[in-house]
Amino acid sequence: MRAVDIITKKRDGGTLSREEITFLIRGFVSEEIPNYQLSAWAMAVFFNGMTPQETAALTEVMLKSGNVIDLSGINGPFVDKHSTGGVGDKTSLILAPLIASLGIRVPMMSGRALGHTGGTLDKLESIPGYRTSLSVADFREFIQKDGFAMTGQTREIVPADRLLYALRDVTGTVESIPLITASILSKKAAEGTEGLVLDVKYGTGAFMKDAGLAEALAKSLVDTGTALGLNVKALLTDMNEPLGYKVGNFLEVEECLDCLEPSYLEKHNKKAMPDSDGYNSDLSAELMEITLDLAAAMTVLGGKAADSVEGRKLCEEALKSGKPMELFLQNVKSQGGNPDELQRMRNNFRSPIKAEIFAAKDGFISGIDALKTGKASVLLGVGRNKSEDEVSPQAGVEFHVLSGSKVKAGEKIMSVWARDEAGMNAALPELEDAVSYSNKAPEPRKLVLKEIP
Amino acid sequence: MRAVDIITKKRDGGTLSREEITFLIRGFVSEEIPNYQLSAWAMAVFFNGMTPQETAALTEVMLKSGNVIDLSGINGPFVDKHSTGGVGDKTSLILAPLIASLGIRVPMMSGRALGHTGGTLDKLESIPGYRTSLSVADFREFIQKDGFAMTGQTREIVPADRLLYALRDVTGTVESIPLITASILSKKAAEGTEGLVLDVKYGTGAFMKDAGLAEALAKSLVDTGTALGLNVKALLTDMNEPLGYKVGNFLEVEECLDCLEPSYLEKHNKKAMPDSDGYNSDLSAELMEITLDLAAAMTVLGGKAADSVEGRKLCEEALKSGKPMELFLQNVKSQGGNPDELQRMRNNFRSPIKAEIFAAKDGFISGIDALKTGKASVLLGVGRNKSEDEVSPQAGVEFHVLSGSKVKAGEKIMSVWARDEAGMNAALPELEDAVSYSNKAPEPRKLVLKEIP
Repeated sequence: MRAVDIITKKRDGGTLSREEITFLIRGFVSEEIPNYQLSAWAMAVFFNGMTPQETAALTEVMLKSGNVIDLSGINGPFVDKHSTGGVGDKTSLILAPLIASLGIRVPMMSGRALGHTGGTLDKLESIPGYRTSLSVADFREFIQKDGFAMTGQTREIVPADRLLYALRDVTGTVESIPLITASILSKKAAEGTEGLVLDVKYGTGAFMKDAGLAEALAKSLVDTGTALGLNVKALLTDMNEPLGYKVGNFLEVEECLDCLEPSYLEKHNKKAMPDSDGYNSDLSAELMEITLDLAAAMTVLGGKAADSVEGRKLCEEALKSGKPMELFLQNVKSQGGNPDELQRMRNNFRSPIKAEIFAAKDGFISGIDALKTGKASVLLGVGRNKSEDEVSPQAGVEFHVLSGSKVKAGEKIMSVWARDEAGMNAALPELEDAVSYSNKAPEPRKLVLKEIP
Repeated sequence: MRAVDIITKKRDGGTLSREEITFLIRGFVSEEIPNYQLSAWAMAVFFNGMTPQETAALTEVMLKSGNVIDLSGINGPFVDKHSTGGVGDKTSLILAPLIASLGIRVPMMSGRALGHTGGTLDKLESIPGYRTSLSVADFREFIQKDGFAMTGQTREIVPADRLLYALRDVTGTVESIPLITASILSKKAAEGTEGLVLDVKYGTGAFMKDAGLAEALAKSLVDTGTALGLNVKALLTDMNEPLGYKVGNFLEVEECLDCLEPSYLEKHNKKAMPDSDGYNSDLSAELMEITLDLAAAMTVLGGKAADSVEGRKLCEEALKSGKPMELFLQNVKSQGGNPDELQRMRNNFRSPIKAEIFAAKDGFISGIDALKTGKASVLLGVGRNKSEDEVSPQAGVEFHVLSGSKVKAGEKIMSVWARDEAGMNAALPELEDAVSYSNKAPEPRKLVLKEIP
């Protein structure tokens, strides 16, 4: 078998056998097949795609390139959630303790911020002392004890993905549905989960701008995950605007703590839009609507509810009980943080470099662009352009109004915290530009476009 | 500027600027941009192509990556020919002295056999003593003295092509019309020629099997060559059958010597097919028809004839004069060979390992497959699979009949010489398989399908 023949076959629209895919990926990981052949192959895959069988074979050979977390001896069910990434996307921090409180174990392996999108690990690490590089023994212990654990991917987990992703990142071959599918699912299968809810986002702040492409990715993930023996469901969700009202590492932890308060649901606005007078009683309304839909799907996959209506009811009851908040603080303690200190830090752990943004005119906020907000937040120090960059825990944006809110010119609409002055100066015009205005209230957006299957 | 952005732009169907192409190729040659980015870009070019402006810019930046032969001080006009390669394709050895005899200088830089196709340098080197690695000073001197010179590409000429071709060869990105165009024309422009006739071959023994693709390549070569200030014409010629009746390094030199004999044209069969009784008086008929059409085009580009009819007449007169044969032998002497020894070697410089192939049945030869013949000839030792392989000067095939010939079962149709027994045993079934038979005479093939422009 020769790598060049495999590349040419894919280039010419052929279907690769499991043996050919195995030869290519194993050779790449063992450095017998050079990077330049893999990148040409990845570009051919970008253009000609892969069949479901090819995608499943690729996912499996990647999975087998490294260690798999063994959760045997711990009682399941195990259900995890994965998001394709967005701006202000903090649902994991609410979902993990919420679902764990219902007796479903959540073995969560997350990633870091890159580009305009945030990362769960960076958010968690904004809690002083919180460790995200858990040993397998700790990961198992915390799952058993607290019902969930949050860790980063070790070098031993799916090395093929680490190597291939680094290559795709610099060769214009990231945006391929089968390659994305194999990357996501090989890691999720390696963490030992049985059920998986996928939050596939579309819109300006998402990886896939186009809803049609996002839906194709969702279908590919569900089909391939099912072929691998996972119990998978995907939700297609809107990422045209930041999710929730805080963007930033510690700022997002704060918003999650607010949502985990037993009293939160009393003020929750289920229609997720301001009242007709433009007043917004619940700035986390959209975040919680999407979170509850994802949570309901997780309870169904975990066998705790017959359908999502029942699952959502269970989740709302759990939140009101205060158990999820308890588990969150218990996990903070397990993973090295101090729950009391965390509570004291709420609403005051901020960078001293602060600015405010005011409404440019009278009227309604008709849109807040997620991509522009995400790019501005990188400038503030929330995210990173290169994987080596350090992030700031204290930087970010708090929105005082959201889409649909009625504003008066000069009214404060955002508070902004930056790591440094240069970042602040670069970010402010971007943030001002992210906001658009209209004379009448905008139409409500559909937050969850589709469930697959 | 970042390589990944240039790759992505091309991947998404964008048109690259001259600056972007220059950045990419210069960075590649200086090793600042890694192979894996170039191969991904080449694959994106394979799928999305290039505009004529992009192809011209690529050709120019490749040309400028190395030295250009300076022919100033030598009187022109300078016209060269390039073939995309075939089996038994030996026209260069006849064309160079023929065109030189008409006062047009031919600065010919050629390549080696690779895969099933032969190479001019390997054929010339079958003449004992003949040197094909000329210094620029020798190249200039021989062009001045003999009207033409034949050399290989030095490392200093278009290094970008050498590096890029080596990468394309192992990444499935050879078969791209703009990349082939830039590869061919950057080298031809570097040798200092003004006029260029391109023999673009299609058929089983050609690089492009499909006439439509070959025509697209021919058009790309003419458009790009013209944009570079060259005077270019392309002929689309048939390579479904070996050209001429000898395939092999020294065997092909012999056939060229036969065609350069002043008496050759007396027996030349212009319709390039056997008589109606299947008798073939001129086994080099097809070779010479294509050669004379290419030669006529060269005289027109060199300003020696108003059109190809006049050009062809000039060439026929020149051949009859014996001057081209004289120049050929004079060049052999200049480049280190011994013309007298060469004459003595004719028809007896052969490998001792010999076999004969006989007609399998009564009837007409309806086809001799060029690809099968070419692959068999590699086994015999004529060509090479890898660029490091050595070739044998004495191996090859002589056809005693060609397509359209009438044969009786058991009649000798080929003599075969191999470098070793193993090669002979492997090649003989391939050669037998290359021949097909029919009950009635086959239709004559059109040898030159089109001239462009």
